[in-house]
Amino acid sequence: MRPSGRHLDEMRSVSIETGVMKHAEGSCLIKVGSTQVLCSASVEDRTPPFLRNTGLGWVTAEYGMLPRATNTRNRREAALGKQGGRTVEIQRLIGRSLRAGVDRSALGERQITIDCDVLQADGGTRCAAITGGWIALRLAVNTLMKAGLITSDPIIGHVCAISCGIYAGQPVLDLDYSEDSAAGVDGNFVMLGDTKMIELQMSGESTVFGRGELNSMLDLAEKGVRELIAAQKAAL
Amino acid sequence: MRPSGRHLDEMRSVSIETGVMKHAEGSCLIKVGSTQVLCSASVEDRTPPFLRNTGLGWVTAEYGMLPRATNTRNRREAALGKQGGRTVEIQRLIGRSLRAGVDRSALGERQITIDCDVLQADGGTRCAAITGGWIALRLAVNTLMKAGLITSDPIIGHVCAISCGIYAGQPVLDLDYSEDSAAGVDGNFVMLGDTKMIELQMSGESTVFGRGELNSMLDLAEKGVRELIAAQKAAL
Amino acid sequence: MRPSGRHLDEMRSVSIETGVMKHAEGSCLIKVGSTQVLCSASVEDRTPPFLRNTGLGWVTAEYGMLPRATNTRNRREAALGKQGGRTVEIQRLIGRSLRAGVDRSALGERQITIDCDVLQADGGTRCAAITGGWIALRLAVNTLMKAGLITSDPIIGHVCAISCGIYAGQPVLDLDYSEDSAAGVDGNFVMLGDTKMIELQMSGESTVFGRGELNSMLDLAEKGVRELIAAQKAAL
Amino acid sequence: MRPSGRHLDEMRSVSIETGVMKHAEGSCLIKVGSTQVLCSASVEDRTPPFLRNTGLGWVTAEYGMLPRATNTRNRREAALGKQGGRTVEIQRLIGRSLRAGVDRSALGERQITIDCDVLQADGGTRCAAITGGWIALRLAVNTLMKAGLITSDPIIGHVCAISCGIYAGQPVLDLDYSEDSAAGVDGNFVMLGDTKMIELQMSGESTVFGRGELNSMLDLAEKGVRELIAAQKAAL
Amino acid sequence: MRPSGRHLDEMRSVSIETGVMKHAEGSCLIKVGSTQVLCSASVEDRTPPFLRNTGLGWVTAEYGMLPRATNTRNRREAALGKQGGRTVEIQRLIGRSLRAGVDRSALGERQITIDCDVLQADGGTRCAAITGGWIALRLAVNTLMKAGLITSDPIIGHVCAISCGIYAGQPVLDLDYSEDSAAGVDGNFVMLGDTKMIELQMSGESTVFGRGELNSMLDLAEKGVRELIAAQKAAL
Amino acid sequence: MRPSGRHLDEMRSVSIETGVMKHAEGSCLIKVGSTQVLCSASVEDRTPPFLRNTGLGWVTAEYGMLPRATNTRNRREAALGKQGGRTVEIQRLIGRSLRAGVDRSALGERQITIDCDVLQADGGTRCAAITGGWIALRLAVNTLMKAGLITSDPIIGHVCAISCGIYAGQPVLDLDYSEDSAAGVDGNFVMLGDTKMIELQMSGESTVFGRGELNSMLDLAEKGVRELIAAQKAAL
Repeated sequence: MRPSGRHLDEMRSVSIETGVMKHAEGSCLIKVGSTQVLCSASVEDRTPPFLRNTGLGWVTAEYGMLPRATNTRNRREAALGKQGGRTVEIQRLIGRSLRAGVDRSALGERQITIDCDVLQADGGTRCAAITGGWIALRLAVNTLMKAGLITSDPIIGHVCAISCGIYAGQPVLDLDYSEDSAAGVDGNFVMLGDTKMIELQMSGESTVFGRGELNSMLDLAEKGVRELIAAQKAAL
Repeated sequence: MRPSGRHLDEMRSVSIETGVMKHAEGSCLIKVGSTQVLCSASVEDRTPPFLRNTGLGWVTAEYGMLPRATNTRNRREAALGKQGGRTVEIQRLIGRSLRAGVDRSALGERQITIDCDVLQADGGTRCAAITGGWIALRLAVNTLMKAGLITSDPIIGHVCAISCGIYAGQPVLDLDYSEDSAAGVDGNFVMLGDTKMIELQMSGESTVFGRGELNSMLDLAEKGVRELIAAQKAAL
Repeated sequence: MRPSGRHLDEMRSVSIETGVMKHAEGSCLIKVGSTQVLCSASVEDRTPPFLRNTGLGWVTAEYGMLPRATNTRNRREAALGKQGGRTVEIQRLIGRSLRAGVDRSALGERQITIDCDVLQADGGTRCAAITGGWIALRLAVNTLMKAGLITSDPIIGHVCAISCGIYAGQPVLDLDYSEDSAAGVDGNFVMLGDTKMIELQMSGESTVFGRGELNSMLDLAEKGVRELIAAQKAAL
Repeated sequence: MRPSGRHLDEMRSVSIETGVMKHAEGSCLIKVGSTQVLCSASVEDRTPPFLRNTGLGWVTAEYGMLPRATNTRNRREAALGKQGGRTVEIQRLIGRSLRAGVDRSALGERQITIDCDVLQADGGTRCAAITGGWIALRLAVNTLMKAGLITSDPIIGHVCAISCGIYAGQPVLDLDYSEDSAAGVDGNFVMLGDTKMIELQMSGESTVFGRGELNSMLDLAEKGVRELIAAQKAAL
Repeated sequence: MRPSGRHLDEMRSVSIETGVMKHAEGSCLIKVGSTQVLCSASVEDRTPPFLRNTGLGWVTAEYGMLPRATNTRNRREAALGKQGGRTVEIQRLIGRSLRAGVDRSALGERQITIDCDVLQADGGTRCAAITGGWIALRLAVNTLMKAGLITSDPIIGHVCAISCGIYAGQPVLDLDYSEDSAAGVDGNFVMLGDTKMIELQMSGESTVFGRGELNSMLDLAEKGVRELIAAQKAAL
Repeated sequence: MRPSGRHLDEMRSVSIETGVMKHAEGSCLIKVGSTQVLCSASVEDRTPPFLRNTGLGWVTAEYGMLPRATNTRNRREAALGKQGGRTVEIQRLIGRSLRAGVDRSALGERQITIDCDVLQADGGTRCAAITGGWIALRLAVNTLMKAGLITSDPIIGHVCAISCGIYAGQPVLDLDYSEDSAAGVDGNFVMLGDTKMIELQMSGESTVFGRGELNSMLDLAEKGVRELIAAQKAAL
């Protein structure tokens, strides 16, 4: 029934290659099916002004998409002179999600910026960015710990994200672009470990949904997150 | 336990005054406690380019906040030269939510822009904007129908939104600012009628949540939405 | 002769409601006929850089108009990414006008920002903004004096503004939109007390004017300003 | 008493050199004392959208100042990414002033853009821009008439502008920078011919003024305008 | 003598992987040592306005760099709201260079946009972008020819680019970042085939150069270009 | 053969008038044929942040063109809200070129900004800007030395620039606009003294060039530079 022939609860293949950017304190290239996101973590010894002298650190994220990551070329945001609404919304989500998995007190007064740049898009880029961004963050924290700059691990647990939706009337896991553009309901589930939710964003532009559908999608999401955590562990 | 002395499942008082902007096709001033949002609907006889010759209409929204709607003055976005990420995120949410309650084919090739300007903020501005924005939309559609420009009512049902969260460890309905800024989990529930969900956005920056909390908040949200629909009906 | 049936020297009804924004140090909603402007004063303990260590304070203003304050919707300046020329011109006028009524030495090194947001426009918005902005300023200064932060009153006198013009060949007081858009000459008179001028801006795009017309309009303006001062006094 | 030793009613020397920009349809370099403004007129065969098919033409103006036209270098507006409030205000004044001297029906559906660029500033740049801009406009219209594109002269009369102010308690004509920065009242008088007013902008940031001062300044302005018209005639 | 141990006339290893972006009409990932640039070609059936109805096509380029492509993180241009001077300069160079290798008449009225995004930077990114961008262009033209949309090959010859400089007093080929940042003279040579020059940009910020050095660098550049052409041929 | 009737190796007449801007520390108006560029030097007692406490000074440049400097009016960059790519490229070139002729250690921690504004354009504006900008720089340094602020002359030698190109198949010196727009190859040669090169930028958009043409153009450039140095010496 799905365009890709996948089962309703079947994720696309996930691969995470670490250490792909030699300058970054942590980096990976995550591929979820044809979706490819390059994630890097950059550490700075200063925090935003509102955190000065609080002893707390900060994790933030920026998201971008190469102009031809998609089927037709999108105009380059740098040339347009501003980030679009979708970009802003996604990078705020990535930042909030990753911060939820960090003990900012243990991190200390430093900032880690996670850059997530989509090289190729086929649905699920924000979820891949969160899952891959966490790997970059984890590796950057490892770098700080190896250098003795942090003594207690600020990483609380695995953070990853997966989309679920109602496609052709059925709850499905991990929508690709052809499903995403036709889905009645589309949701993104960000979890800490495999059962605790950090963010839940569900949207039904062409239809509505009830508690039954919500629970079905949560079941799928938990399955997907378990597989993503396994992929994260394998990559590290 | 709540700063306002409200019960856990008690909303703030809601008032909706219609027809407050003489130029707009539909308008209202919605007050939810101390939060005040002025909503207007503007009808244009043309749609965005991507809908030309499709027979479908469009509903979109813009959101703003007066600089001194808040406790300390925020810089004016027009003077800064761009809308902030929060603004963009909220106006996209309002637009998606209201579109979900409209049969765009029955609306025909016209655009209705809902402007939601926060005159005073005390938590829950995006929810008040959706609830009030729907009133402005409903009134503008009434105007079009009275003028004979639309023959079949494109409004599918009431759209309204309410926030719920976990405050001091307890699920509470309709967070005000003092609760919102201290809440562990914060969610916005947009519904069509009183049981079907359009959008669900839950975020746990300082904690995480499980299915139990999600269900408790859904119960509260459904109660709140029933009261908001009653307020909408009373206003019309 | 006037579209509203008013006498040549008759102002529209003026109402000023104070204390309408709970967060601001001073605020009012001024209505001049159908024109409605929400004015707030925000106090900060710092001045612009060019006044540091001079002992002088600063009063500045920002002006905005809700997109549907007018008959047809204007694009939102925050979304356009810049304030239009008209907006900039008006907010500079408001700022200069209010500063002229303040002893900046008595104010001390603090800044008061007056935000004037037009909720509904029917001509004369800049004049209403000055008249209402002065009320917000007066109330904010009262707040500072009650708190003992200022000992000597920095307010020199009432500042208010009124438009006069040549409409259908006759000098008229307080133009509404239907008159303003058809007027040959259009002027704004800002006064300190009821006879001293702070700013005088007269413009004749479709005609010219001589000293006779100027004097007639000054007579009208002085009458209008006396009435506005009375309204300001009543509101306080 | 004046820093320059001039009499109270004495203008600075005025020179207008025409034809200084070989590409423009009309141009001049106007010098008023040390103030130097290069003015050009550019003709286009199209009008702004709001005038299409009205038979009416348009005259508009843009104003700029070289970064080192002033005593200390100002940042270049093109590099800052926007025109400042003062620039916008001035170019709107120039445009309105010149339009008032044109029969836009006789001009026909074309646009003339007057660029006024200040090469050196010593007070009175907006007045010099109007006076010189009119010369560029006059020359461009002559070009159009010689080419047979316009048959009836659309120029109604001379447009020129002069500043007056209250300096050291005395009304003075044509303020230079040292006077302007110390003046209690500062006004710009734009006239069509030597007695009819187009625009009158008076501002008293550090003091106020009454009808007596206004009349004294008007007397001075009329004298100045007579001299400027003579200079314009001599230049043509 | 070189930090990398390379001979004076020795290039870094070059690899070009084609077809790496599934949506683009042509694409490659070019690696020159540690420098990595992802290049894509996007075909549109319309040209810029200045070429309408001329029968000529257009080739243009945009250049970007991921924030953490470099040793310390650069701010994202999309977030800053504009492309920096260096970016603009480079993308103009890439566009001019590639256009020089195309018969725009044979291309017909269509535009090909070459996006060059630096994933990792270690000197020579603009040269790698030109060399890789040509591959993307070549592949996109092949796509058009296979589809029968173009009948005569518009590609005139291989375009590639290499840097040469004076490092530690010696002419060297293909500077990496450590050399580039210390070089007295730095030049980029863009060639069509292996002896004809399209662009030559030499800059000596910390020193000057004479004809002797210029000729030595030209000798090196020709050697480098021969090797790049071989790499391009191998990749196709 | 040349449109102007000049010999292949004949420059246009060059005039340099110094001291034309009374506020600037150094200034000149340079005319090369019909091309006119107004150049000023502004001295500030601070350097960009990256040079703080290094003992080194900075020389930078900004370039602009009046809207009607050209045959058809260009839109004003300040009104467009950004500097175009060509402007950015040119001002970076001017800055690099002038810095190459300065001992920044002798200059000390101060910044000199060279503003080059094209009043009239007829080809070769960037070269005229460099040649004239150097005069402004030289005069500003003289001012600093006379004031005893600099004791050792930081000016290393004359910096000037000339264009050469292949026009109608022949190498020509100092292209005017009619030649420039038709030239197959166009190059700018920036020199320190009359034989040492600082920058060399050659571009062949409609053709390519070999070493023979390059050498012919270098011969012409050296002749031109000798004449420009003579003009600079005469002006000082």
